[in-house]
Amino acid sequence: MSHETLSPELEAVVARAAAAAPAFAATSPEDRARAIVAVADALETAKSDLVTIGIRETGLTEARLSSEVTRTAVQLRLFADTLVDGGYLDARIDPADPDFALGVRPDIRRTHLPLGPVINFSASNFPFAFSVMGGDSAAILAAGCPLIVKAHSGHPELSDATAEVAATALAAAGMPDGVFHLIHGREAGVAVLKDPRIKAGAFTGSITVGRLLADIAANRPAPIPFYGELGSVNPVFITAGAIAERADVIASGYLTSVSGSAGQLCTKPGFAFIPAGSALPEAIRAAADELPEHRLLDPRIARSFAERRDAILASPGVRPVIDGGIRFDEHGHGWATPTIVAVSLDDFRHSKEALVEEAFGPLSILVETPADTDHAALMPEFTEGNLTGTLHLSADEATGDTPNAAELHALVDALAQQVGRVLFNGWSTGVAVTPAQQHGGPWPATTNDSSTSVGTAAITRFLRPVAYQNAPTAFLPAPLRDDNPLSVPQSIAPAGESKSWGHRWH
Amino acid sequence: MSHETLSPELEAVVARAAAAAPAFAATSPEDRARAIVAVADALETAKSDLVTIGIRETGLTEARLSSEVTRTAVQLRLFADTLVDGGYLDARIDPADPDFALGVRPDIRRTHLPLGPVINFSASNFPFAFSVMGGDSAAILAAGCPLIVKAHSGHPELSDATAEVAATALAAAGMPDGVFHLIHGREAGVAVLKDPRIKAGAFTGSITVGRLLADIAANRPAPIPFYGELGSVNPVFITAGAIAERADVIASGYLTSVSGSAGQLCTKPGFAFIPAGSALPEAIRAAADELPEHRLLDPRIARSFAERRDAILASPGVRPVIDGGIRFDEHGHGWATPTIVAVSLDDFRHSKEALVEEAFGPLSILVETPADTDHAALMPEFTEGNLTGTLHLSADEATGDTPNAAELHALVDALAQQVGRVLFNGWSTGVAVTPAQQHGGPWPATTNDSSTSVGTAAITRFLRPVAYQNAPTAFLPAPLRDDNPLSVPQSIAPAGESKSWGHRWH
Repeated sequence: MSHETLSPELEAVVARAAAAAPAFAATSPEDRARAIVAVADALETAKSDLVTIGIRETGLTEARLSSEVTRTAVQLRLFADTLVDGGYLDARIDPADPDFALGVRPDIRRTHLPLGPVINFSASNFPFAFSVMGGDSAAILAAGCPLIVKAHSGHPELSDATAEVAATALAAAGMPDGVFHLIHGREAGVAVLKDPRIKAGAFTGSITVGRLLADIAANRPAPIPFYGELGSVNPVFITAGAIAERADVIASGYLTSVSGSAGQLCTKPGFAFIPAGSALPEAIRAAADELPEHRLLDPRIARSFAERRDAILASPGVRPVIDGGIRFDEHGHGWATPTIVAVSLDDFRHSKEALVEEAFGPLSILVETPADTDHAALMPEFTEGNLTGTLHLSADEATGDTPNAAELHALVDALAQQVGRVLFNGWSTGVAVTPAQQHGGPWPATTNDSSTSVGTAAITRFLRPVAYQNAPTAFLPAPLRDDNPLSVPQSIAPAGESKSWGHRWH
Repeated sequence: MSHETLSPELEAVVARAAAAAPAFAATSPEDRARAIVAVADALETAKSDLVTIGIRETGLTEARLSSEVTRTAVQLRLFADTLVDGGYLDARIDPADPDFALGVRPDIRRTHLPLGPVINFSASNFPFAFSVMGGDSAAILAAGCPLIVKAHSGHPELSDATAEVAATALAAAGMPDGVFHLIHGREAGVAVLKDPRIKAGAFTGSITVGRLLADIAANRPAPIPFYGELGSVNPVFITAGAIAERADVIASGYLTSVSGSAGQLCTKPGFAFIPAGSALPEAIRAAADELPEHRLLDPRIARSFAERRDAILASPGVRPVIDGGIRFDEHGHGWATPTIVAVSLDDFRHSKEALVEEAFGPLSILVETPADTDHAALMPEFTEGNLTGTLHLSADEATGDTPNAAELHALVDALAQQVGRVLFNGWSTGVAVTPAQQHGGPWPATTNDSSTSVGTAAITRFLRPVAYQNAPTAFLPAPLRDDNPLSVPQSIAPAGESKSWGHRWH
């Protein structure tokens, strides 16, 4: 089953996806919603079989994988809601206006159409939620784009099994033939990404591979958008006030966030900037009594983590706070317990090269800053774009009414400049799937920070605006018709040159 | 004034733009709206001086340039309306929900922040509306991004004069120092585009230059979005029914659209597919009595047009309908009258290479198709992405209730797949600036068809979503606060796992 997909099979996949595009684009949002809900139902029905395969292939726990299936189903259902709501179409109607300042204005109406076939490269660390039927796939299918998933080599059998469940559900729900395909192998994925019939790419994975694929997409004869979610070190800033107020709570939250899923999450806090001399390291040590050992996803990730961990521990001035470790079993699998280290800001600065790069696994660095540190200036000094940035404040500081309020505001602004999500008094792991979620950030967190890869706003990545000028009703897409048969939100411009606001100060 | 901008001047421009970014981002939308309106007012006040320079530098007529100043001012005012309306912020609020299906859901709120400094490469053919203070510049400033305009070499003095008017108005309106700069020279533009402090690029011009710049933006160490509006041949399809009904009206509209601004518009109809043996060519000949001669924008464009015209006329089977021409004056300027040619579909197919490429100037090709032609299939055969596609129908056909309705629907769908705007019974030149406008299209019409370069939706290109999780009110951006001090539209998600729609069929 999970062999590298080769031509002519690969050519048939792309040809079928391209052939399916017009029929899939013509399905109603409600029919696509029903089909997506059917996939969610089918995944939940097949949960125990799928989780069994997932445990074997990924080493993730039953509890984690079961809840991930639930999350995956919830994601699919949320996109069904998005489709039925119709706001995602951003339907705009500008009625004709004979008195427009620039001459007779025609009737112009604008909605969004699916891009066409899309390839989604799935991730290793979320074998359901960012894999075959994960968030990107849900957004692509919801948009009405035929989907080709490139399976991750870390869970090929689970990918095949999930694909079979999904394909069966989509067909039973009446979706056109050819709207969903699974392929295996990196070369196959690259060949599809280069194919002129493919109109966009999605990816979750490393900076190295993401950059490679983004360059391929950008340098095609006809470039296409490529939405890659890559690396992030997710800086955390913890004030002296917050530590004085609740060192134990912060210590235990930090440990849970760093060690959950063996630290193999793109939102794992890689750094926490804390005041030098604070009680937090001791509180972390105290909270670390019973840390379980977790298997890392695959031997390559384990070896890479072991190397990063050695390099960090060997860096001048780095002191272990929790001296976890990694051991390898007879299959080459690495089993890790969390490692937390501390380093002064000066030493961190001197060893920037060795320390700043993401360590994918259960490791985090406490950077101890002197009292006079300008924390807002640390962000651009040490990291580029990140998915998240977090601030822990005391209850007093949260009022914005303490002597350090200006400094805190500057830090929040600096975080907002460099991340997609700014958190307060919480932890960046565990990304809520909601309409307002933003999972993205400036390079290298993502290849394209104008959109999100989690949350229902993700659907916009696979749509393209098209305007219709003076179209007879018979030729208007449903969302743009005056009788609004789909009951979508329509934004109707007032007649006249504009709302005339721009003329107030004439 | 209009010398090539060199370092250290260029470095100072980028440094000042970068330094201005936080203060500009912190201005209120209403203050930016007032400033943009002040620029519109100032341009209108300076209109006659600016138009005088424009006539000399571009050869465009006084009437055309005067109306272009008006259009430019209207564009700026529309963006002011957009700012005050606040819908462009897409403010989303997902309240905390302790009963969310995936565990306690935090409070998440999402809005859009400006990207940072942006470079805009201005166009030759719209020395106001797509130049120093044109649509892209209006969108960039409205978004709150410091703006560096690379002047087009075709109107350097007009660029300097416009920049002085704009800079004075922006400063008088209290905008931060450094939010607007003008530079000259292609090397200077490329250097700025490569600078890590620059966060996006905009461009209107040729496919060749647009591709070069898009590749630079994509291949930077940190890639940035690049919004280029490039080439388009804007196919038109005219049915036998439409010609039978109103050959004269269509002939005169076509001629006006092809010859206006000497055909130097990105929306000029390059091809019209008409039934073989129809009365339209004769009607066009009859309408062509008094076609004026226009100067082309510059000698390079004129020479290029003369070459394309010769190649098209020399192509086998091409017959002149209106045998216009081009003559060169003692300054090397080309003066053109419109050329319309006809060719059979067979001959067109045989000479595709010679005929399909855009001819920038007053020339258009009538392609005469046999009665059994599948017009929907012609689109992908002959053109890639286009800004517009047009269909002329009879009144009967517009009802969608004629025997050829299925064929017409297929053609509309094919057009929508390949263009950004589908027009009915009108002409693609003269792009209305309204909220629903879509001026963009698949490659090579634009480098990025997820957005528009005309109309108020263009502002989204220069914004980036950021979410705030459990933020204390004191640290929330104004558009996300419960008391909504800016009165922006806020989309507030219902509590509960979702709207529960996805569970209907459980």
